[in-house]
Amino acid sequence: MVAWLEASAAGAVGDPGRIHIEGMAARAAVESAREQVAALVGARPREVVFCSGATEAIALATWGAAIQPRRHTVASAVEHSAVREWATRGDHTELGVDALGRVDVGELADACGEATGLIHLQWGNHEVGTLQPVAELLADEGFASKRPADALVHVDAAQAAGRVPLRFRDSGIDLMSISAHKFGGPAGVGALVVRRGVRIDPLIVGGDQERARRAGLESIASIIGFGAAAAAAAARLPTERPANRSQTDSVITWARAADGVTVLGDANDRLPHIVCLGLEGVEPQPVLLGLDRAGVAVHSGSSCSSESLEPSPVLAAMGADADRSLRISVGWSTTDADIDRLLDTLPRVLKDLRALGR
Amino acid sequence: MVAWLEASAAGAVGDPGRIHIEGMAARAAVESAREQVAALVGARPREVVFCSGATEAIALATWGAAIQPRRHTVASAVEHSAVREWATRGDHTELGVDALGRVDVGELADACGEATGLIHLQWGNHEVGTLQPVAELLADEGFASKRPADALVHVDAAQAAGRVPLRFRDSGIDLMSISAHKFGGPAGVGALVVRRGVRIDPLIVGGDQERARRAGLESIASIIGFGAAAAAAAARLPTERPANRSQTDSVITWARAADGVTVLGDANDRLPHIVCLGLEGVEPQPVLLGLDRAGVAVHSGSSCSSESLEPSPVLAAMGADADRSLRISVGWSTTDADIDRLLDTLPRVLKDLRALGR
Repeated sequence: MVAWLEASAAGAVGDPGRIHIEGMAARAAVESAREQVAALVGARPREVVFCSGATEAIALATWGAAIQPRRHTVASAVEHSAVREWATRGDHTELGVDALGRVDVGELADACGEATGLIHLQWGNHEVGTLQPVAELLADEGFASKRPADALVHVDAAQAAGRVPLRFRDSGIDLMSISAHKFGGPAGVGALVVRRGVRIDPLIVGGDQERARRAGLESIASIIGFGAAAAAAAARLPTERPANRSQTDSVITWARAADGVTVLGDANDRLPHIVCLGLEGVEPQPVLLGLDRAGVAVHSGSSCSSESLEPSPVLAAMGADADRSLRISVGWSTTDADIDRLLDTLPRVLKDLRALGR
Repeated sequence: MVAWLEASAAGAVGDPGRIHIEGMAARAAVESAREQVAALVGARPREVVFCSGATEAIALATWGAAIQPRRHTVASAVEHSAVREWATRGDHTELGVDALGRVDVGELADACGEATGLIHLQWGNHEVGTLQPVAELLADEGFASKRPADALVHVDAAQAAGRVPLRFRDSGIDLMSISAHKFGGPAGVGALVVRRGVRIDPLIVGGDQERARRAGLESIASIIGFGAAAAAAAARLPTERPANRSQTDSVITWARAADGVTVLGDANDRLPHIVCLGLEGVEPQPVLLGLDRAGVAVHSGSSCSSESLEPSPVLAAMGADADRSLRISVGWSTTDADIDRLLDTLPRVLKDLRALGR
């Protein structure tokens, strides 16, 4: 966010009404941002199609690859609603997942048929953090034999980008959606990464912007901020990833020893910054309130953030007992002392609430 | 643009990762911007659906009203490419226009059938400035009798908003698309104005933002800038409109007396800030270069802007002789002295180029 405001304040934002010097500067800034975003996810700059966020990127992927002409899509039940809602507009097969939220490769292969045009595989889950073994799934011979040669694979990497190393190039992924605000960039900008050679039908038409893959005047300032956030995230990744992992590991270690607390999702193969807890016998909203009262800030930049999740398709698909869950996520500014305070406060809050409930 | 940067720098931009105090401030700022945009176009705030620009707004209008379920659309040949490209994806009738770029109401009525779901009427043309008599067309009894009761009317007001008074409320228009950057706001933000009671199928799905009419985290800073630009444009309109008109009238007066120069589009019923000239015997690019060399800045905030247009569907539909045209547009910062300099320089540039061409 800071980098973005600096980019704006520094006058890097060309007036769209001026096509000469300022316009050229804006164009150069957009292309520089494209290189920064491409570098974060290991893609070629030309493969990056800027748009208004991962939600639009997913709509573009689904429309562009599968709706015109109408073709069959496959997606798991734990995908983000943007995938599920678009995919289910057409002919669609939903895959179940195991108790950790992972797709079965045999089921994936069986879901594919001649009409299949697009397969969605989420890199890391937005609620429980579980990583899909995308490379393994793509390399599976059974899946490869059932997948039509022209069927595309879309990966929702909105939660993963900036948090785990991604190398789009040579990954075998055809389309990948990412969002700037998930790793500190501005709201309302994202990208669909489109593998070289893959042609998609644009969703928003009427101009040749983004190599005719997304029409409309570019959101120049937001794109510059997206690039700056991508560069910052790439620079932080080598130290931030193990730090995030260590902090969420502490939460998991506590949770495993605590009464009436379960870890939802895969405790090992997961996004480093997310851990999701099932809490027995309490509602998560009063837990958040209790944490807040005890000075453990909720959704503050100086601490980890936590959030209660309504009963969700993700948990239902995993067959999780928990009606409600508490997602805890950490970021670049989360300190070990923040985690210590959380793990000092949370047991007392749970104990008090359970005592009230008796 | 300035208002937008100020809004950002003032910290009005909430971190989307924070749902409490900062998030509430961002929400309030977005709703305030919604009121400002609604006020500019005479709509109710709830009718304003923010999106990434007029190009997306047009896609949303066409998808939302006519593609699901697939229905017939009607649009004139002079609509913006965003309308024509989306509309022609489905069952579509294109209306011709007269020599000034105006639709014939009889032809409009005849184009409507039982399957018609959406009719596009551009408020003011983006190339020649001609105004469609939208209110007159909507009030026409012949059209009313042929238009199905549930067929919607979409008006592309991207060029008109902020330049002429608009009163969406009570206009009979169902959907109206506008873009911030056309009147000084940031690039990459716009709105579809949706009449109360009209239901549209969202194009971008997966969240309940914008009253479930447009999913995805809002582009908060851009929306704040959009609102500020709308408020500024509304305040300027009473003086800017006659000033623009007077300046473009001067260009028209000169053009009518000049050899080999024609006024394209309606010289009277037009957007106040646009005039389009056909130039015989010269290519417009060297004309722009000649103006630039003579110190008449092209696309500068301190002058009017001019731009050469390739042979276009608009001119072709009008049956204009001109292969090429020169569009001159003025803005809030254009002075009468700028126009004097243009009208002093342009005849000399044309004369020199024609002498070269002999």
